[in-house]
Amino acid sequence: MADASSPPTDQLAAATLDEVPKALFSDRAPIRSIISRPDGGSALAGRKARVGGWVKTGRKADKDAFAFLELNDGSCAGNLQVIVEASLGDLGQIVPTGTCVVVDGRLMLPPAGTKQKIELRAEKVLHVGPVDPAKYPLPKMRLTLEFLRDFVHLRSRTNTISAVARIRNALAYATHTFFNKEGFLYVHTPIITTSDCEGAGEMFQVTTLLSEAERLEKELLENPPPTEADVEAARVVVTEKGEVVSQLKAAKASKQEIGGAVDQLKKAKESLAKVEERSKLKPGIPKKDDGNVDYGRDFFARQAFLTVSGQLQVESYACALSSVYTFGPTFRAENSHTSRHLAEFWMVEPEIAFAELKDDMNCAEAYVKFMCQWLLDNCLEDMEFMADKFDKGCINRLKLVASTPFIRVTYTEAVEILEEAVKNGKKFENEVKWGIDLASEHERYLTEVKFQKPVIVYNYPKEIKAFYMRLNDDLKTVAAMDVLVPKVGELIGGSQREERYDVIQTRIKEMGLPLEPYEWYLDLRRYGTVKHSGFGLGFERMILFATGLENIRDVIPFPRYPGRADL
Amino acid sequence: MADASSPPTDQLAAATLDEVPKALFSDRAPIRSIISRPDGGSALAGRKARVGGWVKTGRKADKDAFAFLELNDGSCAGNLQVIVEASLGDLGQIVPTGTCVVVDGRLMLPPAGTKQKIELRAEKVLHVGPVDPAKYPLPKMRLTLEFLRDFVHLRSRTNTISAVARIRNALAYATHTFFNKEGFLYVHTPIITTSDCEGAGEMFQVTTLLSEAERLEKELLENPPPTEADVEAARVVVTEKGEVVSQLKAAKASKQEIGGAVDQLKKAKESLAKVEERSKLKPGIPKKDDGNVDYGRDFFARQAFLTVSGQLQVESYACALSSVYTFGPTFRAENSHTSRHLAEFWMVEPEIAFAELKDDMNCAEAYVKFMCQWLLDNCLEDMEFMADKFDKGCINRLKLVASTPFIRVTYTEAVEILEEAVKNGKKFENEVKWGIDLASEHERYLTEVKFQKPVIVYNYPKEIKAFYMRLNDDLKTVAAMDVLVPKVGELIGGSQREERYDVIQTRIKEMGLPLEPYEWYLDLRRYGTVKHSGFGLGFERMILFATGLENIRDVIPFPRYPGRADL
Repeated sequence: MADASSPPTDQLAAATLDEVPKALFSDRAPIRSIISRPDGGSALAGRKARVGGWVKTGRKADKDAFAFLELNDGSCAGNLQVIVEASLGDLGQIVPTGTCVVVDGRLMLPPAGTKQKIELRAEKVLHVGPVDPAKYPLPKMRLTLEFLRDFVHLRSRTNTISAVARIRNALAYATHTFFNKEGFLYVHTPIITTSDCEGAGEMFQVTTLLSEAERLEKELLENPPPTEADVEAARVVVTEKGEVVSQLKAAKASKQEIGGAVDQLKKAKESLAKVEERSKLKPGIPKKDDGNVDYGRDFFARQAFLTVSGQLQVESYACALSSVYTFGPTFRAENSHTSRHLAEFWMVEPEIAFAELKDDMNCAEAYVKFMCQWLLDNCLEDMEFMADKFDKGCINRLKLVASTPFIRVTYTEAVEILEEAVKNGKKFENEVKWGIDLASEHERYLTEVKFQKPVIVYNYPKEIKAFYMRLNDDLKTVAAMDVLVPKVGELIGGSQREERYDVIQTRIKEMGLPLEPYEWYLDLRRYGTVKHSGFGLGFERMILFATGLENIRDVIPFPRYPGRADL
Repeated sequence: MADASSPPTDQLAAATLDEVPKALFSDRAPIRSIISRPDGGSALAGRKARVGGWVKTGRKADKDAFAFLELNDGSCAGNLQVIVEASLGDLGQIVPTGTCVVVDGRLMLPPAGTKQKIELRAEKVLHVGPVDPAKYPLPKMRLTLEFLRDFVHLRSRTNTISAVARIRNALAYATHTFFNKEGFLYVHTPIITTSDCEGAGEMFQVTTLLSEAERLEKELLENPPPTEADVEAARVVVTEKGEVVSQLKAAKASKQEIGGAVDQLKKAKESLAKVEERSKLKPGIPKKDDGNVDYGRDFFARQAFLTVSGQLQVESYACALSSVYTFGPTFRAENSHTSRHLAEFWMVEPEIAFAELKDDMNCAEAYVKFMCQWLLDNCLEDMEFMADKFDKGCINRLKLVASTPFIRVTYTEAVEILEEAVKNGKKFENEVKWGIDLASEHERYLTEVKFQKPVIVYNYPKEIKAFYMRLNDDLKTVAAMDVLVPKVGELIGGSQREERYDVIQTRIKEMGLPLEPYEWYLDLRRYGTVKHSGFGLGFERMILFATGLENIRDVIPFPRYPGRADL
């Protein structure tokens, strides 16, 4: 991402000394290029500028001789103060919050003692996109994040949601930058899938059967299917026409006469075929003879779902291209109404061939550190806003994670630590003993209380982990790892994958899963198998961790959860 | 206890001058780091290296004293020649195509006159992932791209598909780099949507109704619903228990006796309620009283679909953050079996506030040029492979597009040019006259024959374009533009969006679309409206254009089309 203080180089070249350069594909200068500079913009005093944005706060002053506007265009967290004289337009129309304004003007140093370092004195108002304050859904007042969730099409105009958008963009770009720098190839794994990665169910189905059935039902209503009598009548016509042909032939009629009768017979037969076909049309979902839905007639000629993870598919690319990653949307049809679950969310999933669990942990640690440092380097203004409004500790948390080696403990050690804590009086809701899946309270105790830094727990009991994780030599644990961080607990889950054909086949059977759907996955072990490892990072979890926000519905632009899919 | 194994960055420092450094999160040196150097790797002669990869070609030589392996790890197009002595392992197991091999060895200059500039003499074989050549689906022979589509889990091991993967990765990274450099924010628009961008239908439905219905049907089979007699029996029990209570009360029985009877009555009532509820369970898709599907009982409490475009949603972010883009999967449930259509494909859609059609065209041109130059700078080896195997002209095409200003003609001018061509004897399958939607043959004539460079056609008749495109002052055309390039024709479609509330409302009605689903979209014009423009680039089209490949199913890792969704 471009450093906030340095506009694209081509812009600088094009700029005259007297004018602030415009954005390359737009008719105005980004407000960022004016105020997000070490000097706050003061060095630009005297220059002309054209700016556009939406009014955050507007007020008339000096007996309505002037309007003062705080203008924001989303290019940075800060606003530019714009002063508009009454002679330039209808000030009453310009000041309401939410109004879009484009002005030409000249940058001036504000009176000493004011907060901003530069302001714009308008010379011409080029555009006003007005707002009726009585109707605008986002009036100038403190609106709760919950309230804003009912206005996903407008909420990016608020300070919080626009800061989240910039932080989310920065983390996405940091992700691509990190993996490309390290030689990983970005692979687009499929969204529509016929594999179930975890074998866990809870998948959305993708189908055209329902809409086809509805179309057919409507069509049959408008144009009812033939009755048995209609079919019989069509049959009678065929018989009659057939008899005419026979009679004409018997009577040795002319070729022309016979030909005409044969044509009529043909037409009668065609019309019978059509009537018979339509009489078989049944409204509703197509079923097979055994009563089950006939997915052979669905779009993909089989049942299809939305992916829950790109891991299995990206493994096939790792077993050819060595270092790869996928970054895309994933889906769970879970009926969860918590602040940590979405039906549609984004995951980053790298997969590395010729890599063991320790390489996987090294990669996860380096990646998380890289993202934290990236935000400190590129998004400090937005992070300061978050620290101010939501989570005082968020910037220090980024610094801590960026600079501290992650603690690494085995699952067995982690359970011992938790048991020790219980002995010393710590109360957990969930019982602690070897074999349990660590609960969120356990994870947060380890990272927030015991170590107060990021922790990687590895080598989990095989019973609580997926079939594809590599069995350790103790035959009790698998080479899995979770990265735990303060504030959100588990941020990353990963493992070395089982590359031994016999072992993984046994594990699939042990888990009670059918082999057939995994034959292609077993092929990766049958032919040129390689040790490989990977992990998944929940992208929204990372944003919660960075910003300190509490609800995952506020860190994705258009949240989907049970009962809600706005827009 | 804590494993403080050295953080990844120290690994590079640890590499001695005598050794080729390993990849950061892996146990081998990428082959690219050895052979993809200006000197072809010759300067590394004498160094130790650990490499891993898959055998492209293996053969035994010198009466089986040696094996020569061409090893590829996907990090680059080229192979490293590895020489393995018989004493190091079973050469017969090592040479089959597809075998995975990891070796330690020393880099040596090959005998003068050989093609490669460096080779590796193995000193130790660390891993062999064998292949049974009799069973391996991708034997060493020329396999058609069509054949490979049946092995999407293995085809990335072939030269062509791995080159496509690297080119695709490069174009994706170029996309993010370009837009971030220009100050655009990446916005994740939703995959599951309740809006239909084009109003065109052909959408996949996302639902849990079918699986719920199947679950219920199975459950009712195993555990049949109560019959009317069962319900009646339960009712009788309630009546009886009620009578017992009445009798005990009348007989002034003890509190304990009455209490016991009341408890029994309660239980009988509860069990009746359950039986009644289960008796109402109906197998099949839930319906409303009017016979339509009851989508209120679907996961999102309404009908939901896979997105056909993120444009409308990303507009809402542009009308707050100014310069944004989305890059993600989009879907069409079209029954198309052509070489140019997929059911799941990726689109890049920038959207720019304070921008007119000319800014939009400038952005499209700069973006396409940037991607072409990026491939020339970063993927030349893969492009040379494509030029050699598929399309001699592909590198020159990239150079042409990267360096030539795009021609810009209005639709009206374009039609005149085509009419002129017809006059001069050019035959088109589709008639040419003002008002038609340009067919692919027309587009390719303009870009490949007439101008022989990229062409932007703009200002199309409003009748053939979408409702959201800005009406021009002539009231006949809209501010739409298409970018046409040699080889694929239309690569980009875009427009200035209609920002005038009254005009767009009229256009929606004119098109016979309902207003209600677009109310949120109209809000963007009601409140602080701004002129804005954007476009969409079909990402797979761009890869076809770059590589010269003919079939879109070969440029996406896991193609989805009617009847096929492997993995």
